[in-house]
Amino acid sequence: MQPETTLDPAIEAKVRASFAAQSAMRTIGARLASVRPGAVEIELPAADHINQQQGFAHGGVIGMILDSACGYASFTTMPLDCEVVSIEYKINFLRPAVGERFVARGRVTRPGRTVAVAQGEVVAVTNGAEQTVAVMLATMAVVKAPA
Amino acid sequence: MQPETTLDPAIEAKVRASFAAQSAMRTIGARLASVRPGAVEIELPAADHINQQQGFAHGGVIGMILDSACGYASFTTMPLDCEVVSIEYKINFLRPAVGERFVARGRVTRPGRTVAVAQGEVVAVTNGAEQTVAVMLATMAVVKAPA
Amino acid sequence: MQPETTLDPAIEAKVRASFAAQSAMRTIGARLASVRPGAVEIELPAADHINQQQGFAHGGVIGMILDSACGYASFTTMPLDCEVVSIEYKINFLRPAVGERFVARGRVTRPGRTVAVAQGEVVAVTNGAEQTVAVMLATMAVVKAPA
Amino acid sequence: MQPETTLDPAIEAKVRASFAAQSAMRTIGARLASVRPGAVEIELPAADHINQQQGFAHGGVIGMILDSACGYASFTTMPLDCEVVSIEYKINFLRPAVGERFVARGRVTRPGRTVAVAQGEVVAVTNGAEQTVAVMLATMAVVKAPA
Repeated sequence: MQPETTLDPAIEAKVRASFAAQSAMRTIGARLASVRPGAVEIELPAADHINQQQGFAHGGVIGMILDSACGYASFTTMPLDCEVVSIEYKINFLRPAVGERFVARGRVTRPGRTVAVAQGEVVAVTNGAEQTVAVMLATMAVVKAPA
Repeated sequence: MQPETTLDPAIEAKVRASFAAQSAMRTIGARLASVRPGAVEIELPAADHINQQQGFAHGGVIGMILDSACGYASFTTMPLDCEVVSIEYKINFLRPAVGERFVARGRVTRPGRTVAVAQGEVVAVTNGAEQTVAVMLATMAVVKAPA
Repeated sequence: MQPETTLDPAIEAKVRASFAAQSAMRTIGARLASVRPGAVEIELPAADHINQQQGFAHGGVIGMILDSACGYASFTTMPLDCEVVSIEYKINFLRPAVGERFVARGRVTRPGRTVAVAQGEVVAVTNGAEQTVAVMLATMAVVKAPA
Repeated sequence: MQPETTLDPAIEAKVRASFAAQSAMRTIGARLASVRPGAVEIELPAADHINQQQGFAHGGVIGMILDSACGYASFTTMPLDCEVVSIEYKINFLRPAVGERFVARGRVTRPGRTVAVAQGEVVAVTNGAEQTVAVMLATMAVVKAPA
């Protein structure tokens, strides 16, 4: 995990602009909650349009915010002219995603010039109490951003 | 992979009812294309509301339909009074998800009484030509359905 | 992660007997270093017979001790008449495994009656300093031990 | 999967020299059985010194030969001055590894200039009959070989 030093405002702006350009995040209702060096949080309120057949938040939606949190966490450790793309991820679902809202926390395990490794979890929040519903281990590629 | 014998119509009905109850699948625009013994296909048209920042389909959305295809493929090999839940999955992204539509193909690798293993891929279809954009290896739990 | 309460001596004995019965662990030179509730450490000295082509410890050997550490960590949270088998694991290699010895640390993320999830890492130790060389996310099945 | 064209003898020689330099493979008793374009097989006879506590081949040993088969399969698709290192892999164990010998089959799913994706399985062979005991999905990095 990265030391919690100050984040370059240009990098935070880059992360926020990239997130804002993801229509899929708007569709599910996710928002970028916090951006720190090597650590990003994404929040998602429970909602009727993102559920699986039992009325809980869909595992794929949980995977979506956690992959993004891990990807943007990696993004914060890269040069400004780079982008991150997910090479792969693995997610374990620990419990049904039941709660008022879900918080995906991604953090960089190993920054890198070409490949970064990140880990994270999603917690379900109910009455202020948190319970972990999923954990992830992910690999990100660092690529030059198109000019 | 399962032999392509005839599927019990009651099992196909169970799979279709479960899929229809997933609001998240409606939200992204996915539909259940085919249900065969041990093999399920889910289709997703490209659309403006499911994209990442570069205007391609979001990896998390691709993961969502592939996880569902793997899960329902496992579902077809279980007794009628059971349900399937995803324990975990791993997905590798091979190329940007660019195409007119995406087809997720899940198939059971190893059916089981309590745990099933499934594999699958998502192809992007453009002018009738297919290109694989993601592959998955997933583990599903078989649980008794609530009465 | 499990609270660090006292471990039932019968469970520690069960873990140590199972580890001692693994000829593969003797072959590579691994030993069971510590067994606590929900957390197990396995040590492996660097040695000429467990290397890959560049003369570093083989990734597969690193995976072997980490899978075992995660498995036995899960083992400590189960009833005495159960056994653990690995359903699957994912391992990321962060750096070449260079050091005097390697310590695999597994801990239970989510204990369970039929399925447990565990996480862990391997550190390389050189002159008392540690560097993480691999991380794992694993799923274990709990099965009744044969009488 | 790669088309089965003829393999450059210099690449096969490079693969065989690299495998021969892995002391860990000698320790477990594995041998390189076949090297084709994008596809490699490694064989491992059942033996008393590579077992887990129930007397079957250790899952970590099965993972070791399958990771190597996937890695060398990727190796065959790269320029001669490159090397492959495992970024990560995920393995699912389908059945206890019981048999006279085990064959790990790796094949390239997606070759690449910097990252390659490979898949494979291990079959247990008994009286000429094969049964799949494990499947893998792996990511390899392509790196310049040291001169």
